[in-house]
Amino acid sequence: MLNHTHKTDLKCWVESAQDPNTDFPVQNLPFCVFSEEDGGDRRGGIGIGNQVLDLSVCDDAGLFTGRAADAAFMAASQTLNDFMSMDKGHLSALRAEVSDLLTGDGRTHRGKKLPPDLLKPMSEVIFHLPVNIGDYTDFYASVHHATNVGSMFRPDNPLLPNYKYVPIGYHGRSSSISLSQEIRRPNGQTKAPDAAEPTFGPSKQFDYEMELGFFIGKGNPQGESIPIENAADHIFGFTLVNDWSARDIQAWEYQPLGPFLAKNFATTLSPWIITSEALAPFKIPAYRRAEGDPGPLQHLYDAEDQNSGGYDVNLEVLILTPKMRDSGMAPVRISLGNFKDMYWTVAQMVAHHSSNGCNLRSGDLLASGTVSGSTPESRGCLLERTWRGRDPIELPTGETRKFLEDGDEIIMRGFCEKPGAVRIGFGECRGTVVSAAL
Amino acid sequence: MLNHTHKTDLKCWVESAQDPNTDFPVQNLPFCVFSEEDGGDRRGGIGIGNQVLDLSVCDDAGLFTGRAADAAFMAASQTLNDFMSMDKGHLSALRAEVSDLLTGDGRTHRGKKLPPDLLKPMSEVIFHLPVNIGDYTDFYASVHHATNVGSMFRPDNPLLPNYKYVPIGYHGRSSSISLSQEIRRPNGQTKAPDAAEPTFGPSKQFDYEMELGFFIGKGNPQGESIPIENAADHIFGFTLVNDWSARDIQAWEYQPLGPFLAKNFATTLSPWIITSEALAPFKIPAYRRAEGDPGPLQHLYDAEDQNSGGYDVNLEVLILTPKMRDSGMAPVRISLGNFKDMYWTVAQMVAHHSSNGCNLRSGDLLASGTVSGSTPESRGCLLERTWRGRDPIELPTGETRKFLEDGDEIIMRGFCEKPGAVRIGFGECRGTVVSAAL
Repeated sequence: MLNHTHKTDLKCWVESAQDPNTDFPVQNLPFCVFSEEDGGDRRGGIGIGNQVLDLSVCDDAGLFTGRAADAAFMAASQTLNDFMSMDKGHLSALRAEVSDLLTGDGRTHRGKKLPPDLLKPMSEVIFHLPVNIGDYTDFYASVHHATNVGSMFRPDNPLLPNYKYVPIGYHGRSSSISLSQEIRRPNGQTKAPDAAEPTFGPSKQFDYEMELGFFIGKGNPQGESIPIENAADHIFGFTLVNDWSARDIQAWEYQPLGPFLAKNFATTLSPWIITSEALAPFKIPAYRRAEGDPGPLQHLYDAEDQNSGGYDVNLEVLILTPKMRDSGMAPVRISLGNFKDMYWTVAQMVAHHSSNGCNLRSGDLLASGTVSGSTPESRGCLLERTWRGRDPIELPTGETRKFLEDGDEIIMRGFCEKPGAVRIGFGECRGTVVSAAL
Repeated sequence: MLNHTHKTDLKCWVESAQDPNTDFPVQNLPFCVFSEEDGGDRRGGIGIGNQVLDLSVCDDAGLFTGRAADAAFMAASQTLNDFMSMDKGHLSALRAEVSDLLTGDGRTHRGKKLPPDLLKPMSEVIFHLPVNIGDYTDFYASVHHATNVGSMFRPDNPLLPNYKYVPIGYHGRSSSISLSQEIRRPNGQTKAPDAAEPTFGPSKQFDYEMELGFFIGKGNPQGESIPIENAADHIFGFTLVNDWSARDIQAWEYQPLGPFLAKNFATTLSPWIITSEALAPFKIPAYRRAEGDPGPLQHLYDAEDQNSGGYDVNLEVLILTPKMRDSGMAPVRISLGNFKDMYWTVAQMVAHHSSNGCNLRSGDLLASGTVSGSTPESRGCLLERTWRGRDPIELPTGETRKFLEDGDEIIMRGFCEKPGAVRIGFGECRGTVVSAAL
């Protein structure tokens, strides 16, 4: 899987890409869609240091050849859906070509002069949702999260009997997924345990959920499943997902058909798609199931997936309250988890999703569900971090939080690092809670 | 609400529209998207008798003026989404103008000669999904269905405490919605109650669900709700929905996040959208809640909605087995329900859906959930009709059905009729079960 684009000694002529703390060294090369102004032309770009490589400029200048040129042409569109539907070979060719361009002499590529407007500073562009998301599916792949939430919602029956056989998931809402950084607190029905009737008003248990999302590259025809052996090939890349949740609305509405209004008011993504190829150095064995746990059924079992279908991706959540902002304080971390704690691999989720013939389309978003590990700090939402408000989090200002308050900003980050590899990051997913509609 | 387009004495010059049994008299005027050949240009049409009025021909010939002309231009597109997002005034103007055209002299309209290719026989065109469905939401609005299903899945707890306060719904799958008439039996995980482990294979409890769907016309911005008083104005029109279901997969997977693979392999629609305006003569009071039931909370209560927010729409399901087909027999009816038995009105479903700020987009599909009444014959799925297989249905061939078998064809129809009004119909939603993938 690893090739010259992953080498640790690559020298990139973009100065900011040489910073050892950058999320976007030349080994990363994540995709985005951007415009230079509001309402301006949208096109695909690749992050490098603090710059965006403009793929429409690459395409216009004819910098690439063969499959890389075809791929750049497709990726220069308003959304990346068609590009993502191409064979993986096209993506690899484009990655190799862009890597060569960025580690060349900085003036030419394949004998052609680099156009002066090839790079745009990230700080001066506007990012957009990189794909048209047809369907959004949210899984529940952390057994720690499922057990914790189960203990609170169903104390007598925390982890249901299907959990270790079925990669549990449900359909979420596509329309309300955005990069927006203002998240309105939802109104909804809630019912206190001792109340005779529910009431309608602003949610009092507003929460974040730290998740890793992954986009479908090539889809499958309706009626045909994707075998587990091929499932990873259908994943284009990964992004950060904050699946905002209203726990009090959720508790009252979720039976028997699952969460609905508690979730579908907003989901925030980071602007960047980190490709599966960029993450190749950070592949690890699948989650090791506890002694006595059943193995996956045959249609969810693949030896290669078990050996290297996991991902070592750190995910963290930081909070910045209005009081912290006013005092000039930096955001503080309130969750730090790792995707390796997921009970199911992404290949298992894709194979399961299509096992009934459900057609996945290029650009469809699947998300892992809350990423929580076995320790309190690794839990990826306030519901678990504060045990539904019983153990509030203390902040350096002396403030406490059971759930989110208006004005609180939530910042999610993701990064991979290990000895012998260059650190790569996911950028940021940010959102600030604004007060509920009257 | 009623105007001259609803008059019972309108004389339409399209002969087949004069048949008292036609689904498509001139009082109906439902929308579709069609092409004349496979891969040919798709455009909007209006059903009249056994013909389709070609809106692109109307547009090209400049038959209409003002808002009706603007509406016809938009409706002549490949999908109706943009047309559906227009003000209701545009839709009404187009309806009035088409009604005038079809009840005129049959040779001219507004002094212009009618083009010879204005009408196409339904039997010679190909119908397509009329809209690009961004999100699909399925409700659970029949209290009879909810109680029956609850009794089978949760005998100790059939109707959950939230049911009479919350119009329960969940997100379904957009990608697998089609007009396709071949429905592949899904594979999936199921677990017999006495089995130690689940197994993977073809569903043995394959079912239909008879539903009424409705499309969003004008949407709402994210973060802003649609008040109940305005909710009906956001509904463009209605269609037939068969929400195919695999009951054995559903029973094993549905907790805690709701149905997923049991439903998302396929949903079949009828080709026609019956507009809210066409259904105006069949509006009735909302469901009368039982003595002692709570009233709707304030945000779901509107006096006008209570007075006239229900719809008197008959829905029926017929079956044709391979043996019946071979014997030259006609399909037989196995369900006959009515939309008036829904506990929640469509306006309540729209208001609820957006009450948290969730944005609905033009062309989004909402469906009622299975339409079941209080009698056995009125139950809209085999799960209820056969009480999960306990009481098989007997067919005229001597065959019985607990659930659907390969080769069975399911035909759904809908129609409205009452004294003093012209009968209007919904067309048909057809699908035949084909054997599971190997």
